[in-house]
Amino acid sequence: MDRKQSLFSAMISLARIIKGRPRISPALDGNAMLQTILNRRSVRAFQARSIPEEVFSAIIEAGRLAPSTVNLQTWSFAIFSPETWQQSFSHKIPFGGNRAVIIIADTYRAKQVLNVFPDCPLLEHTVAVMNASLAAMNMNLAAEAMGVSSVMLSETGRTGLLDANYIRTKLNLPAGAVPLMTIVFGYARGAPPPMPPRLPVTQIVFEGEYPSTDRLVMESWLDQMVAGYNISHPGSSFAKQLEVYQRKISQAESDLKEIVFGKNGDID
Amino acid sequence: MDRKQSLFSAMISLARIIKGRPRISPALDGNAMLQTILNRRSVRAFQARSIPEEVFSAIIEAGRLAPSTVNLQTWSFAIFSPETWQQSFSHKIPFGGNRAVIIIADTYRAKQVLNVFPDCPLLEHTVAVMNASLAAMNMNLAAEAMGVSSVMLSETGRTGLLDANYIRTKLNLPAGAVPLMTIVFGYARGAPPPMPPRLPVTQIVFEGEYPSTDRLVMESWLDQMVAGYNISHPGSSFAKQLEVYQRKISQAESDLKEIVFGKNGDID
Repeated sequence: MDRKQSLFSAMISLARIIKGRPRISPALDGNAMLQTILNRRSVRAFQARSIPEEVFSAIIEAGRLAPSTVNLQTWSFAIFSPETWQQSFSHKIPFGGNRAVIIIADTYRAKQVLNVFPDCPLLEHTVAVMNASLAAMNMNLAAEAMGVSSVMLSETGRTGLLDANYIRTKLNLPAGAVPLMTIVFGYARGAPPPMPPRLPVTQIVFEGEYPSTDRLVMESWLDQMVAGYNISHPGSSFAKQLEVYQRKISQAESDLKEIVFGKNGDID
Repeated sequence: MDRKQSLFSAMISLARIIKGRPRISPALDGNAMLQTILNRRSVRAFQARSIPEEVFSAIIEAGRLAPSTVNLQTWSFAIFSPETWQQSFSHKIPFGGNRAVIIIADTYRAKQVLNVFPDCPLLEHTVAVMNASLAAMNMNLAAEAMGVSSVMLSETGRTGLLDANYIRTKLNLPAGAVPLMTIVFGYARGAPPPMPPRLPVTQIVFEGEYPSTDRLVMESWLDQMVAGYNISHPGSSFAKQLEVYQRKISQAESDLKEIVFGKNGDID
């Protein structure tokens, strides 16, 4: 592809991102809760304004009341104000957020009284990640319900799975507790960012057997991702972000194996 | 504990379940979306009434628009009507549900064009599970917004992670696609079931370092679980359900290891 073609292709990709909107029947347009869910954005710029204590408590309550496998509630939430975050990590909450919650997939606590997955560490880990993520989404949407925006971080600022051992040390987490992500909460500053390009329904939904992947659709999606990344991540680029991942993943993988399977990493 | 004491203890536990309600500031009582999120229940009895096509499409749209790590959208949704479910699995959708969606943590599709986690299968799996679960919760709450109830199943009726290989065969899933759960959707029949006992905020939320687990609180929670299980799961008991798990987990663990780490299960 020459330069002119590639510029044209980037413009098409940008146009696609900008017109990307939730597609629902007009009959449902009046459903305020549905609109809030479908128009949620990951926000990366927050006002200095504080989140009231009762609003933050209600967000936590949404995490506490999330559904979970066998009601095991395999989650813990490490909560932070700007001051306690600074104390723990010696830098500010990313993006000027006013509160932060580290979502931990926690197989440790429930196991003190009930061992549902003896000698099945991968199953146990998978279930814990699943449940903790359900709680995270519930908290995210409870925040939206109260006009509070958020972003889920798994890398930026050493906030999640890619720095699991760093966080584990800082918080003194026990065996079986895996930090997944930090949700940064705050009141959004500026206009909502555009929706990063989503795959079409036809690529992600199927009836009957799993369909073959449409490479053209996937390549067009990747073009849109690359073109759109700068808009939603000022000061970064998609390629730069991937480089960061490439530098960190090997260590993160071996740390995670040790957390899930124990010191010798024996999976049998 | 003698019989009388144990009956008394069960009554206390039941009373605790029945009075278990969301705890938020009265100032937030008027927030309809927050109330919907906090009062969501896992429903296991559905009316025969059909979910309109546009309502089901909007539920799927909420899954499609969920947030995900690097916007990778590592999820696929296998969708079913009562008829197609019957064709695929030779029995009815559990609990008389009107639609079913199998949530698949899908590392296969995106990797056709972009490999973010080369040689890091556990990290890749964990991220996919996390993202697919965020999508699941988004769909669950979008349904609630439209008056549609649901339940997330990971075992009942061979619907999820504990029967991953069974589902993989039925749907012809490629390597790297892990069925996590089936969400069964429908209009609730009868009164909403009570909230299964949730751990108190003080057990799941912390500031600073991870706190020691309060065994008394955990044991009381387990008592409540056992006592309450029959209410929300007619025809079953907590002990019976655990037995089912014990029978299935070893096979499920070794299947999952093969899916995540490949045939020889080598994690290094």
